[in-house]
Amino acid sequence: MSERIKYLLDETQIPKCWYNPAADLPAMPPALHPGTGRPVTPDDLAPIMPPALIAQELSTERAIEIPEPVRQAYARWRPSPMFRARGLERALRTPARIYYKYEGASPTGSHKPNTAIAQAFYNKEAGIARLVTETGAGQWGSSLAFAGAMFGLDVKVYMVKVTYHQKPYPKSLMETYGAVCVPSPSRETAAGRAILAEDPECSGSLGIATSEAVEVAIGDPRTNYAGGSVLNHVVMHQTVIGQEALLQMDMAGDWPDIVIGCAGGGSNLGGLSFPFIGESLRKGRKVRVVAAEPASCPTLTQGRRAYDYGDTAGLTPCLMMHTLGHSFVPPPLHAGGLRYHGIAPLVSHALAHGLMEAVAVPQTSCFAAGVQFARSEGIVPAPESTHAIQVAIAEALRCREEGRAETILFCLSGHGLFDLPAYTRHLTGQLHDEACDQERLDRSLARLPAFAKA
Amino acid sequence: MSERIKYLLDETQIPKCWYNPAADLPAMPPALHPGTGRPVTPDDLAPIMPPALIAQELSTERAIEIPEPVRQAYARWRPSPMFRARGLERALRTPARIYYKYEGASPTGSHKPNTAIAQAFYNKEAGIARLVTETGAGQWGSSLAFAGAMFGLDVKVYMVKVTYHQKPYPKSLMETYGAVCVPSPSRETAAGRAILAEDPECSGSLGIATSEAVEVAIGDPRTNYAGGSVLNHVVMHQTVIGQEALLQMDMAGDWPDIVIGCAGGGSNLGGLSFPFIGESLRKGRKVRVVAAEPASCPTLTQGRRAYDYGDTAGLTPCLMMHTLGHSFVPPPLHAGGLRYHGIAPLVSHALAHGLMEAVAVPQTSCFAAGVQFARSEGIVPAPESTHAIQVAIAEALRCREEGRAETILFCLSGHGLFDLPAYTRHLTGQLHDEACDQERLDRSLARLPAFAKA
Repeated sequence: MSERIKYLLDETQIPKCWYNPAADLPAMPPALHPGTGRPVTPDDLAPIMPPALIAQELSTERAIEIPEPVRQAYARWRPSPMFRARGLERALRTPARIYYKYEGASPTGSHKPNTAIAQAFYNKEAGIARLVTETGAGQWGSSLAFAGAMFGLDVKVYMVKVTYHQKPYPKSLMETYGAVCVPSPSRETAAGRAILAEDPECSGSLGIATSEAVEVAIGDPRTNYAGGSVLNHVVMHQTVIGQEALLQMDMAGDWPDIVIGCAGGGSNLGGLSFPFIGESLRKGRKVRVVAAEPASCPTLTQGRRAYDYGDTAGLTPCLMMHTLGHSFVPPPLHAGGLRYHGIAPLVSHALAHGLMEAVAVPQTSCFAAGVQFARSEGIVPAPESTHAIQVAIAEALRCREEGRAETILFCLSGHGLFDLPAYTRHLTGQLHDEACDQERLDRSLARLPAFAKA
Repeated sequence: MSERIKYLLDETQIPKCWYNPAADLPAMPPALHPGTGRPVTPDDLAPIMPPALIAQELSTERAIEIPEPVRQAYARWRPSPMFRARGLERALRTPARIYYKYEGASPTGSHKPNTAIAQAFYNKEAGIARLVTETGAGQWGSSLAFAGAMFGLDVKVYMVKVTYHQKPYPKSLMETYGAVCVPSPSRETAAGRAILAEDPECSGSLGIATSEAVEVAIGDPRTNYAGGSVLNHVVMHQTVIGQEALLQMDMAGDWPDIVIGCAGGGSNLGGLSFPFIGESLRKGRKVRVVAAEPASCPTLTQGRRAYDYGDTAGLTPCLMMHTLGHSFVPPPLHAGGLRYHGIAPLVSHALAHGLMEAVAVPQTSCFAAGVQFARSEGIVPAPESTHAIQVAIAEALRCREEGRAETILFCLSGHGLFDLPAYTRHLTGQLHDEACDQERLDRSLARLPAFAKA
């Protein structure tokens, strides 16, 4: 090939270990028990998670071995390709070199199976029969449904009601894999019933759906909870993305000046960037890491770094993270995967220590970036991923202006085939931007738990 | 890896030539001019196709070099992976070894870009500004839209009206790539207006949409027609599938006793199988090739081998092929890509000479096979592809019964993410089988063109 556009690895290069960023970062503030306010112990987590995942959640070991059956399942779509975005570079007339790591070729079209497969494996090993979880846009729910099918586990998904009705394809995908998908808030749980008693028309949120799932897991010894983002072990599982990208940048004979990921719960951003941050901390190689978040749900740029619950009902441990407050409900937004009030403590910690930057971008400019990307690179990106693309384009245009040939790497976390109606709305001028409502944010931040002062 | 499930090639192993089956098959009956009944000449095709594609259409050279920019564009998703279906083998408890070549990881999710990219390249080279085509389920239209975006060509797609309204996602995909998509029959063409004058409620067919596209191409020197299947050069472009699979079967140290593809226009079936048939004809290696077609549109099993038009209005050359008659309208069917009255002359010719078999399968058993595949292999197949899976499963169960460890290879021509509502209809018992209406078929066969007697 005259112009190389793709960097492929073979099966043997699927990472043999997950990388644990906690080993290289300054010491992390512990998660706190929501009742006692004391650091959570393995016993606290035992009702909802298998021992292996609890150990990973609390570990500071740098490398955690990936079990062979997990690598075997990864091999269905991993290693994922890294592309040089030559079409986009030409369209932008930029001297920058732009690369993207593409996670959309997984069976469910996003990076989520990287952790779904691992969690299903460990739960099956521990004799668990069923996993429950929440989902917003559906990428996580369908990925857990896929993983459940692969390892013979039942899966139940509480799906944010507004998305359940607006976006029916992911629900069909979960059911095709054999999972059960229920709109949340539901009447099946005390948390759901309490919300419905207050507001029968409640259209749901990730925080509410999480409360329902955690409640079900606590109440049934054969059922565990599986988290799609935020938690330490989830971010760690996603580091297969960045570890592969390190090898692929080597193949390209290049090193990224800038690494970009969209930020919802933080797992694809952390998965791509932490292996580079680790190299940087251990070997002094410079890298800028940029988190791209939606302007209407600006956790990192307008939230407070404080202890907060992961869910609405306060059933989960309190995590030290940037948060908009666990009662914050962002406006409807097409990048449903980015509508979370908090962020992975690992990402929050990195930001607090100057190892990351964050920028908030409005959704119409993200869709415009997505269309430009589709027409120059051929892949229609997930609305979540367009946030990373928008920032990559802005950096590439800055490079053009400054005449600098910097190297940019971003995570294309998924394809947008389930989001085509949103693209049509964008193309026909029906999409608008919504800023974060400051009053609503202040109200929500005033309701942080007592631990927030810690 | 303890159990190998994936066979990957690198970029350098993208085929350097397309394989032309006409070089190894008995001499093919020529296509005939629809007006004169004489064999078509390059001049006859010049109003709708560039010289390079006309030469390929009429060629009997075995190997036709793939231009470097086409290989470069292929590299976005090729070589495609071949999988060993160990999950499905376990689910079936079969001694058979089942492999599948997966074409669904292309940007549009099917095998169609293999020829769309080639056709866009040659048309751009010839100074053409716009391509027009028809599409049924949308895989072809969206693939041509993608290819047009890659090579800077405008694209217009006439989409069968019933699908245009029932299946909005592919239309959004075309528009995201910058193409124009119009429901057919339309008022834009004489062919469309004639149909609407007769039946204002007409829901369209591939034959009608083809008439509209060909009419537009004939009438504008800067516009050409691009075909998504049936034509010789299209099948030839698809042989990248089979050529890669030959290398991958070598990697596996295996050889397929049976090669299976779903049959609509015949291009993925021919693309996978002809390189194996060529090996078989030249080197005597035995292979059974099975075409899997829908029972409700049974071109190969109940059609007549005769000269017939490729479209409804009789604007295209007459092709010697198995046909249900160009006026045949199959019942609504979820595998929209298989609703064509004819078949590629190369496939028809191979069937007539005993180099292929054909079997017709009802859609509910295909969806059941699709669900079993999704739950054991993790990929939700396109409804078209489930026909190949259904036949592969039947052969694997025969192997179990007979205690034979045969090797089965099929083409998983695309993913089914746009068809999830059809899966939901299947899972909730709303799908039924429709047999081919014999009276309708007899009526349609009675209207074959005069050339049919040739």
